[in-house]
Amino acid sequence: MIGVVTNTAFEMFDRFSPIFAAEAPEITILRPEDVERPEEVSFVFTFRPADDAFAPYPNLQAVFSAGAGTDAIDACPSLPEGVPVYRVEDADQALQMAGYAAFHVHWHHRHMAQYVAQQRDAVWERVLTGLSPTHKRVGVLGFGHMGRAIAKGLMALGYPVSAYARSQPNPPEPGVRHFTDGQMDAFLAESDMLVNVLPLTEQTKGLIDAAFLRKLPEGAALIHMGRGGQVDEAQLLEVLDAGHLCGASLDVFDTEPLPAESPLWGHPKVLITPHVASIPEATFVVRGIRDRMRALVPA
Amino acid sequence: MIGVVTNTAFEMFDRFSPIFAAEAPEITILRPEDVERPEEVSFVFTFRPADDAFAPYPNLQAVFSAGAGTDAIDACPSLPEGVPVYRVEDADQALQMAGYAAFHVHWHHRHMAQYVAQQRDAVWERVLTGLSPTHKRVGVLGFGHMGRAIAKGLMALGYPVSAYARSQPNPPEPGVRHFTDGQMDAFLAESDMLVNVLPLTEQTKGLIDAAFLRKLPEGAALIHMGRGGQVDEAQLLEVLDAGHLCGASLDVFDTEPLPAESPLWGHPKVLITPHVASIPEATFVVRGIRDRMRALVPA
Ligand SMILES: NC(=O)c1ccc[n+]([C@@H]2O[C@H](COP(=O)([O-])OP(=O)(O)OC[C@H]3O[C@@H](n4cnc5c(N)ncnc54)[C@H](OP(=O)(O)O)[C@@H]3O)[C@@H](O)[C@H]2O)c1
Ligand SMILES: NC(=O)c1ccc[n+]([C@@H]2O[C@H](COP(=O)([O-])OP(=O)(O)OC[C@H]3O[C@@H](n4cnc5c(N)ncnc54)[C@H](OP(=O)(O)O)[C@@H]3O)[C@@H](O)[C@H]2O)c1
Repeated sequence: MIGVVTNTAFEMFDRFSPIFAAEAPEITILRPEDVERPEEVSFVFTFRPADDAFAPYPNLQAVFSAGAGTDAIDACPSLPEGVPVYRVEDADQALQMAGYAAFHVHWHHRHMAQYVAQQRDAVWERVLTGLSPTHKRVGVLGFGHMGRAIAKGLMALGYPVSAYARSQPNPPEPGVRHFTDGQMDAFLAESDMLVNVLPLTEQTKGLIDAAFLRKLPEGAALIHMGRGGQVDEAQLLEVLDAGHLCGASLDVFDTEPLPAESPLWGHPKVLITPHVASIPEATFVVRGIRDRMRALVPA
Repeated sequence: MIGVVTNTAFEMFDRFSPIFAAEAPEITILRPEDVERPEEVSFVFTFRPADDAFAPYPNLQAVFSAGAGTDAIDACPSLPEGVPVYRVEDADQALQMAGYAAFHVHWHHRHMAQYVAQQRDAVWERVLTGLSPTHKRVGVLGFGHMGRAIAKGLMALGYPVSAYARSQPNPPEPGVRHFTDGQMDAFLAESDMLVNVLPLTEQTKGLIDAAFLRKLPEGAALIHMGRGGQVDEAQLLEVLDAGHLCGASLDVFDTEPLPAESPLWGHPKVLITPHVASIPEATFVVRGIRDRMRALVPA
């Protein structure tokens, strides 16, 4: 069986080909330029495909995302109709997200930017009040695989957690205050730390703009681990500079890599990570593809 | 009832006196210099007392620490024999410790020093492998109130956790691999992240020296949230520079505030916080003192 590995956002072939060799020897993995008989290609494995990435292959059985999101694949003009698109569904990846969220909640709650800056100047100055997690209500925006793991992790650290999704999550998570359709403003009004893990869709594109952020309590922080395109980056900077937000952690951006000239890089209230909130383990991802393909195309 | 508030390490009187007024109006709180009749002082509230702090008061019923540790009080030459010393025992404080540990485990595991440095130069460069928490075995050194909460928090984030104490904790914590007396080397050999929350005692003074740190796996990190005096700071720097450790987070120091000339401040692998891993909520502390004193000296 032949699969094509192709991606515009980061290198995938070199990283995954030894794993396919070890875990799925019946699958031959090729770069697009090395395909001789496109009609024999059974699947494409990608994260951000080029516009014409799927065009050469008339007999695709499946498309696999290298991550939890499939937004760039779904939006690709050459994606053939009727071919199933599979995401990674990995409990371990969700725990990585939970660790990321816990880190950034602590960063903003516990004045870590101040301490990192003070260390550069050998300054010992302590904030002694408000350290209890009960002082920061965390709101998790999007309550799927990722949101649930994030909520559980933060509750284990003592933070009060609420969550927003359009429909009531099934089952509801014990301890979480759930908000649904029509309750966004109430949800935002009590989120001192807003953790965004929405998928990118027509509804969530541009959702997080100045008006939205101003519904958070004064002094709130934004932790953005969903997708670029959801946060209006210019308006976020406005709201930070106006003092309404105390800080923002950003993992995903309109353009990735984030261009060197972006004012986000140098903003004192912004902490930037290069889209690394979670990366599923390659072995897990390849086993998932192998098992799906075995089910779709029995030997 | 009269209590004296005195401390050499940081300001306590101004912070706590309004809380006593609100929570325990029957208690009069004084600075040592304002005491007129020392024989009427029933308790001292302190964290690091001066050597002669207790000498003036012949009728002490109790001594209260402002924190979880009582090492500086226990070591004070003027501490009268037979007077009970009480620590703060606060589940909320233990959760603060858990959040602190989760942050610093993530800092070292997930390359956060690198990302913070890259941000200064607007550099987008990603580490894509090894992000699963299963890659970092956390060892919690000392398994009392603090160690247990830290272990629970890290397990909720997916980290494998082991713990060391002299005796078997009662009850053992489900999911934790417990090590006890005689098993220190085995414990250290599998701690990729060593979180120290030992109390300072004759046995733990100077415990964490070069020989001790070299028993950790190559590339391990130290998260030190116990007490100054436990880590040999000069030898820690040696082991960091030799490349055996990848980093260290330090919250407590031999001398606090950490002197400006300490080489720890400027070390690229060291992250410093000014003894703020946890601070119990003042209201909780004062209520604890009030309730103890009501029991000791019934109205
Ligand atoms: N930065 C990173 O490294 C990284 C890594 C992994 C994932 N992610 C991002 O995280 C996203 C979520 O992943 P997941 O696995 O949790 O997805 P998921 O399991 O599909 O959950 C999505 C959640 O969002 C809610 N939702 C969808 N559209 C919504 C809308 N318009 N308004 C409000 N809520 C909405 C869904 O519930 P309802 O449909 O009921 O609203 C559900 O609770 C991914 O799509 C990806 O963009 C980022
Ligand atoms: N940085 C901060 O902000 C901060 C805040 C709070 C507390 N702390 C520090 O954390 C320490 C621990 O607090 P805690 O509330 O967890 O104390 P705790 O409840 O008394 O627990 C102490 C633990 O250490 C173990 N231990 C004691 N001596 C030992 C030795 N020589 N070798 C190995 N294990 C030993 C004890 O078990 P065994 O007796 O069975 O060994 C027990 O598991 C405090 O004393 C304080 O120094 C720091």
